[in-house]
Amino acid sequence: MDEAVLIVGSLAYDSVSSPAGSVENELGGSATYGGLAAAFHRRRLGTGTVGIVGVVGDDFSEEDRQLLKDADLDLSGLETVEGGTFRWSGSYHGSMAEAETHETHLNVFEHFQPRVPEHSKSPTITFCANLHPIIQSDVLDQAPPSRLSMLDSMNLWIQIALDDLLTVMKRVDLTIINDGEVRMLADDDNLVRAAHSVRSMIGSTYLIVKRGEHGVLALHPDGAISIPAFPVADVVDPTGCGDTFAGTIAAHLAKGTGPIELNELRAALEAATVTASFTLEAFGTSSLANLDESTFNKRLSEFHTIIHG
Amino acid sequence: MDEAVLIVGSLAYDSVSSPAGSVENELGGSATYGGLAAAFHRRRLGTGTVGIVGVVGDDFSEEDRQLLKDADLDLSGLETVEGGTFRWSGSYHGSMAEAETHETHLNVFEHFQPRVPEHSKSPTITFCANLHPIIQSDVLDQAPPSRLSMLDSMNLWIQIALDDLLTVMKRVDLTIINDGEVRMLADDDNLVRAAHSVRSMIGSTYLIVKRGEHGVLALHPDGAISIPAFPVADVVDPTGCGDTFAGTIAAHLAKGTGPIELNELRAALEAATVTASFTLEAFGTSSLANLDESTFNKRLSEFHTIIHG
Repeated sequence: MDEAVLIVGSLAYDSVSSPAGSVENELGGSATYGGLAAAFHRRRLGTGTVGIVGVVGDDFSEEDRQLLKDADLDLSGLETVEGGTFRWSGSYHGSMAEAETHETHLNVFEHFQPRVPEHSKSPTITFCANLHPIIQSDVLDQAPPSRLSMLDSMNLWIQIALDDLLTVMKRVDLTIINDGEVRMLADDDNLVRAAHSVRSMIGSTYLIVKRGEHGVLALHPDGAISIPAFPVADVVDPTGCGDTFAGTIAAHLAKGTGPIELNELRAALEAATVTASFTLEAFGTSSLANLDESTFNKRLSEFHTIIHG
Repeated sequence: MDEAVLIVGSLAYDSVSSPAGSVENELGGSATYGGLAAAFHRRRLGTGTVGIVGVVGDDFSEEDRQLLKDADLDLSGLETVEGGTFRWSGSYHGSMAEAETHETHLNVFEHFQPRVPEHSKSPTITFCANLHPIIQSDVLDQAPPSRLSMLDSMNLWIQIALDDLLTVMKRVDLTIINDGEVRMLADDDNLVRAAHSVRSMIGSTYLIVKRGEHGVLALHPDGAISIPAFPVADVVDPTGCGDTFAGTIAAHLAKGTGPIELNELRAALEAATVTASFTLEAFGTSSLANLDESTFNKRLSEFHTIIHG
């Protein structure tokens, strides 16, 4: 059976502080959060496997590798090379809407050449999680998906690699972007207008604008979708929420065939919103890695009641 | 037949500039927007009349008075006294989330003593629109409602009349507050926690937190409601949106009897969100005063599709 979801992204050690406390060298990265979220929903939905393409250094712990294996992630595309794993440190303040980055050490990512394993070259979904857009493009070359290509990004690539980012955005079917980034790309303060103009600019079939604590706005050929965030009272650490959100969408869209239906996208976005709320409630991957189906289903049903009655 | 909704609030002449243009001495005020919105929905829903308690100066134009009469507002509680009508000037920039106030002239409001007409003293809903909390309390004394008392306020009263504001908030059944104000009152950056803590602080049965372009969060004894904003691409002037929103809720809740049901509140909030989107699209009251039922119903149905599928 082909891979359901192939994810390329970062694996990292994060040091994070927030008003709720702090952690040092905690397992993180866009492929980690995206992969764990996709793997969780793969089990719920009964789709094929989720594979990760990425690189770690020789300091990557056995324990963390085991955590990814325990989630049934296919790690054959995960390279280990001499050097240090990517490290990021940052902090959150006030409403915790945005991280303040203290340090970024690319380490082994600096010369990363992704290699997609043979058995992963025809996935249903190829999801380029946040990573340098050139690496995202490279993985799209190696693994064109049967159903949908999607990418997530960050403001850094708008600032330092805009042309590469636009090139890869123009290639994918579904682009995920946050509110600040969509305003920056469109040079327009109005979010709705900015979203439409970015969608025309990149020719994306589906555009998803993440608005953090304010929810999500999505543009689909058949109409718009707007969903508020799940109301979380105990925000601990927003790191990885966007990746959790995107990984959940990837797993959901791997379930069907043909074009993505409007209500299929809506269901994926609702599940993604709820999954991200668990990541928000703890440092690192612990709440996501330990999430069980009944806890998730209960909150999803609570969310449906809050937004639909 | 008793009044369905009694509204006390301001009638003003506003001078507003935004990236979309500017207007001078345009009819405005919380009772004006709230009243026009309530009157529109009163016609749709077939409830009793909507009355306004307020004061204007002898500079208040016949044309503006006629506009209020044409909306079938009961103006017997509207006093005209010697002096100038309340004037406000402000501007909106960037994402236009908040107004920058340039000047406020209370004029005839400085010594306003509200007098509720005899026939308006037993309304179904008493809605204290944004106004000094002492005047709000005074109107609640004169016109205790048969179903629900509600109030809207603004950050100014938190800053200069906190005790009076808390006193009137503790009296009403339903408080409407915006996201910045709820965080300020609770001294908590987390909106969800702040909303719960303000609700406990004032003992409000129903609390509605307006989040501007991010929608609305409501707390009801039976659960929470979260609704995104209607996605508006052409924001012209946010002045009066909150009053339009609140006036719509007042009219909707005047329709039933007994405690407000969770889904009754949801329907009111959805209609309020859509009504406010029309106010947002033009300067002054023009789009609200000229709104027709079929235009409203079409957008309400579009909104249902965007948020519920």
